[in-house]
Amino acid sequence: MLIVMKQGATPEQIANVVATIDEMGYRAAPMPGKQRTSVGLVGNDGRVEASRLEGLAGVAEVIHVSKPYKQVSREWKPEPTQVPLPDGSTVGGRDVVVMAGPCSVESEEQILTAAHQVKAAGATVLRAGAFKPRSSPYAFQGLGIRGLELLALARAETGLMIVTEAMDPHGLELVAESADLIQIGARNMQNYSLLKECGQVGKPIVLKRGLAATIPELLLSAEYILAAGNPNVILCERGVRSFDTTTRNLFDIAAISVVHGLSHLPILADPSHATGHRDMVPPMARAAIAAGADGLLVEMHPNPERAMSDGAQSLFPDQLERMMREITAIAEVIGRSVVTPTGATT
Amino acid sequence: MLIVMKQGATPEQIANVVATIDEMGYRAAPMPGKQRTSVGLVGNDGRVEASRLEGLAGVAEVIHVSKPYKQVSREWKPEPTQVPLPDGSTVGGRDVVVMAGPCSVESEEQILTAAHQVKAAGATVLRAGAFKPRSSPYAFQGLGIRGLELLALARAETGLMIVTEAMDPHGLELVAESADLIQIGARNMQNYSLLKECGQVGKPIVLKRGLAATIPELLLSAEYILAAGNPNVILCERGVRSFDTTTRNLFDIAAISVVHGLSHLPILADPSHATGHRDMVPPMARAAIAAGADGLLVEMHPNPERAMSDGAQSLFPDQLERMMREITAIAEVIGRSVVTPTGATT
Amino acid sequence: MLIVMKQGATPEQIANVVATIDEMGYRAAPMPGKQRTSVGLVGNDGRVEASRLEGLAGVAEVIHVSKPYKQVSREWKPEPTQVPLPDGSTVGGRDVVVMAGPCSVESEEQILTAAHQVKAAGATVLRAGAFKPRSSPYAFQGLGIRGLELLALARAETGLMIVTEAMDPHGLELVAESADLIQIGARNMQNYSLLKECGQVGKPIVLKRGLAATIPELLLSAEYILAAGNPNVILCERGVRSFDTTTRNLFDIAAISVVHGLSHLPILADPSHATGHRDMVPPMARAAIAAGADGLLVEMHPNPERAMSDGAQSLFPDQLERMMREITAIAEVIGRSVVTPTGATT
Amino acid sequence: MLIVMKQGATPEQIANVVATIDEMGYRAAPMPGKQRTSVGLVGNDGRVEASRLEGLAGVAEVIHVSKPYKQVSREWKPEPTQVPLPDGSTVGGRDVVVMAGPCSVESEEQILTAAHQVKAAGATVLRAGAFKPRSSPYAFQGLGIRGLELLALARAETGLMIVTEAMDPHGLELVAESADLIQIGARNMQNYSLLKECGQVGKPIVLKRGLAATIPELLLSAEYILAAGNPNVILCERGVRSFDTTTRNLFDIAAISVVHGLSHLPILADPSHATGHRDMVPPMARAAIAAGADGLLVEMHPNPERAMSDGAQSLFPDQLERMMREITAIAEVIGRSVVTPTGATT
Repeated sequence: MLIVMKQGATPEQIANVVATIDEMGYRAAPMPGKQRTSVGLVGNDGRVEASRLEGLAGVAEVIHVSKPYKQVSREWKPEPTQVPLPDGSTVGGRDVVVMAGPCSVESEEQILTAAHQVKAAGATVLRAGAFKPRSSPYAFQGLGIRGLELLALARAETGLMIVTEAMDPHGLELVAESADLIQIGARNMQNYSLLKECGQVGKPIVLKRGLAATIPELLLSAEYILAAGNPNVILCERGVRSFDTTTRNLFDIAAISVVHGLSHLPILADPSHATGHRDMVPPMARAAIAAGADGLLVEMHPNPERAMSDGAQSLFPDQLERMMREITAIAEVIGRSVVTPTGATT
Repeated sequence: MLIVMKQGATPEQIANVVATIDEMGYRAAPMPGKQRTSVGLVGNDGRVEASRLEGLAGVAEVIHVSKPYKQVSREWKPEPTQVPLPDGSTVGGRDVVVMAGPCSVESEEQILTAAHQVKAAGATVLRAGAFKPRSSPYAFQGLGIRGLELLALARAETGLMIVTEAMDPHGLELVAESADLIQIGARNMQNYSLLKECGQVGKPIVLKRGLAATIPELLLSAEYILAAGNPNVILCERGVRSFDTTTRNLFDIAAISVVHGLSHLPILADPSHATGHRDMVPPMARAAIAAGADGLLVEMHPNPERAMSDGAQSLFPDQLERMMREITAIAEVIGRSVVTPTGATT
Repeated sequence: MLIVMKQGATPEQIANVVATIDEMGYRAAPMPGKQRTSVGLVGNDGRVEASRLEGLAGVAEVIHVSKPYKQVSREWKPEPTQVPLPDGSTVGGRDVVVMAGPCSVESEEQILTAAHQVKAAGATVLRAGAFKPRSSPYAFQGLGIRGLELLALARAETGLMIVTEAMDPHGLELVAESADLIQIGARNMQNYSLLKECGQVGKPIVLKRGLAATIPELLLSAEYILAAGNPNVILCERGVRSFDTTTRNLFDIAAISVVHGLSHLPILADPSHATGHRDMVPPMARAAIAAGADGLLVEMHPNPERAMSDGAQSLFPDQLERMMREITAIAEVIGRSVVTPTGATT
Repeated sequence: MLIVMKQGATPEQIANVVATIDEMGYRAAPMPGKQRTSVGLVGNDGRVEASRLEGLAGVAEVIHVSKPYKQVSREWKPEPTQVPLPDGSTVGGRDVVVMAGPCSVESEEQILTAAHQVKAAGATVLRAGAFKPRSSPYAFQGLGIRGLELLALARAETGLMIVTEAMDPHGLELVAESADLIQIGARNMQNYSLLKECGQVGKPIVLKRGLAATIPELLLSAEYILAAGNPNVILCERGVRSFDTTTRNLFDIAAISVVHGLSHLPILADPSHATGHRDMVPPMARAAIAAGADGLLVEMHPNPERAMSDGAQSLFPDQLERMMREITAIAEVIGRSVVTPTGATT
């Protein structure tokens, strides 16, 4: 940490910064410069309360040199984390894992049809919400426990793995019992009580990036889960808020490269929420795989025109099939391999 | 709702939109225009799933005419909501209510000293966190239940009212027992499970705007609380995320006017989190009152240089006193009146 | 255009809106709804001054149904514009055109070396700035006319085509004489005086998206050029401003799909400015091609560690070669073809 | 400047950074830390090309300690700049200067009526555009030279000073001849060719903040003007782009405090463009003055419902009068004084 003093800072002010750092239990290293003095804080263990130094008289700025996260950092663990899935494939290695399905579980017929179509297209994980976070209290909120039962049925019928969202501690318990992967939604990325409980469960967590979360904040939220005991975290870029509302969100595809640089955790892309428009999903899915994403989370509905939520961004079944063929070819160009329902690639 | 067709939309595509609207139980009103046809959806009760229409062939855009929120809307209830506080003052009328105090409860001595200073400066509500949401799992997370006990002690000693944050259902129960107002933090603005429980408690809720929440989204989150039974919601603008990181957040002061236009709910300003810099708090507090805010939420610490969190944005006690004098004069210019500890103004 | 009235709007206010629309020369179509009345403005020719209606008493909102741009719209001209280049290739058809080179022309040796490396890697256009817009008045501002002469020399030596930036009317004249394509930088996207002059020159214009420009604004700026007489406009996505400063800008890759949906104009991607980090350029270049970009604008420097500007985002020559191989394979997956120096593909 | 190395950086990589700094003509000060080594660059004169260092192997990040601007900095000149106006008042001292008038000059009758109303309300500067930058090439672009003539006539009739916008070098010459202050619009904030020419004219420049410009970038644009010879620059906050489109822009009121902290230059607020809604202008004007703005730039039209541009954000004449009374009272609370047409306050 570097404490930059104002140009006219007095020797007393500098001495006070040094004394405060001492008192906090770290070592101060003053560095007089051409225009101003800076004071280095040496020995930062990631727990320094910078705000205390920022407000001292004569201080212009406090600059963070160490990263606030630890266990999720690639400097902490250089080799990529490979999250193992029940079918023997992994997220974070050579495999590319595709999770597809409708926004919500709507009925037995709908979810079984969807599951068969997802499997036929070549994806290995079925996604669908039983508990739905909706901006409006009057919108469809999901089938709840009945939705989880139908997902279990779809797994039994097709052999697909299941990923679905948990919104609160009680829901987490239920989802952890019946799903293969647990999704934490964008709106709950900084619901720290929930994140701590995710550290206690034995299933992989798909942690979606918050609507306006920076990558370091996403990594800090993952750190909560790792620090609480669960190393199997899969991040997911799903678009961020921007000034341009032509698309539902702004797909921050570079997040894939940034995460791969800073962290050993794998990262998926969700081109459906990132764009909000069905026709943009296939090109953005291709782009994500070309950029090195470890997998995809995409919405497909047997009949998007009758979907109870997110119909506009749900693929038609035949669009999913074409998309799978294209990304399979692109993955090969960069030495990756899309996992198919017959088992993990090797 | 208006469904705008593409320029080359076929009669069949238009007929399909009309049929879908019929099937959804609303009335379709096609309007041929110079360049393109639009189809009005008449009878929207706020539950229309727009996404289903957006994805239909030939549709260029779906435009929302009705607002998605209801009970919080000024069209629903024209006169301003006045949330009653235990001292007889109200938030949302002529009164301007100031809530001040440290970021966190740190110790008995610290919180009692702060409470006396807050009272001396002329504010009526003591703010301080017992449960702290922190980006890093390694940062100070608050004193928890012991913090709530110390806040109760501060109230007993000074007569100040207490506002403090709840982060999850269990914490909400505890806070609801001991505080006068319950704060829901920015990161939990879309924690719908928590919002629903806020509807069950009998105390006023201070709902802070999410980091990148639009005003309509803030209103929808308030709608969750009203719909669940609690009409006493006080909104709070605390700065939003922006591309300019010179300040901690971007203080969206116009939100005060926007909320007053769209809703009957009162709105506070939190200039401390909005700027992150102690020296900007007094000018921004003055600005908020001049703009018509119904109150303030500000951080003050007996000794900001030793604060365990948010020291840089905490006022010194004498800064709070000067700020109170200035906003009292400004409130008078626009016909408002700052409430003092001796009781509500009349 | 749809004028949405407030819920309690009086018949007089509605009549006033109708009268104003009449006075403006259009037809008004009032539509009473369940909750409120809307008034359609029929006959919008794109010149309606919406602001006049927004401010009328009783008006809640004015909603734009028509797009403000015309000639650039895909509805105006459904088939894609193919901008012809001197080597016989086109931007906007099956060809994928790569423009590469250093940020600035620095010296004869540097630009000639760069040109030979660009050609060896398989790109067909050399990019380099002679006139440089720099945030600081004290930073290197380019070699000016001498830079243009060196670019002409590089073309003579290698046969590469040249693209370089013009910043003002005088510079535009000079650049138009010596370059094959003229670049208008992001900071000048709304320099309307300059755009109008671009309409007068006979060379293709590469129009970069402004730092915080929406796609409709980018299209309107292109419309200025088309309206002034030059149909050969190539758009370029180069990242937009965001709250996350981990990357230099936020690469809005979905802009490629959005532009292809709304307009017939071709669009390039500039992954160098979009990310600011050399190591992110190849994955983002692959992603752009996978998403359907019509070409790339990338920075490469013979010796990035000694570059006078943008060194951190400039590829090493061997990185460019590898990138060209990867994007060539990806282009084939989606039926496109990267143009090489030996001539246009067919 | 601080070059932060990656955790596993090798001694060779560190040595290379040191050597590069030496070669660039500065002194390198390596600082081994607990987790990583940093290298200080000592002697930074503001011309260091950071990008060259960012890209070196083993470098994690380059941190800027010095500010890139100089002459505009408060560290360079601690006392506030007071820009003198022809009527004897100054912008940047105790005086608060109000500039009001219509968006565009539309006709002799309109501008003369507006000028008399502005004077009657108590403002001293008439604003109105002769050259209008419009997003669409088909929108009204201003009366041009005829507009300047009408502004001169309004000055002759009322004694008000005139501020109007210049969009290009030729327009700048014309405006400099006839106006008292020259406005550079938001879209041209980084039109460096134009800024350099502003340095040559002898009139004060009102430099509006770009739509997505950070404060440091705004200051760097002002630096262009000062560096070219004109010290009389008045900054203007007019709202920035944000994800929330409820208001036209997001009024960054804290920019007033930030600029006053970093620079000696004065700053105005433009609540009309900042919000886009007439009814929000008075509360935001009050807020700006309460926050310490050195003046206001507001739109008022004799008949906003017939304005040719920006009608929805133009005040009615009586709204301007009331606003002037309110801000006069608020200015007094903080020891400032609104200048009236009878002459500067003292």
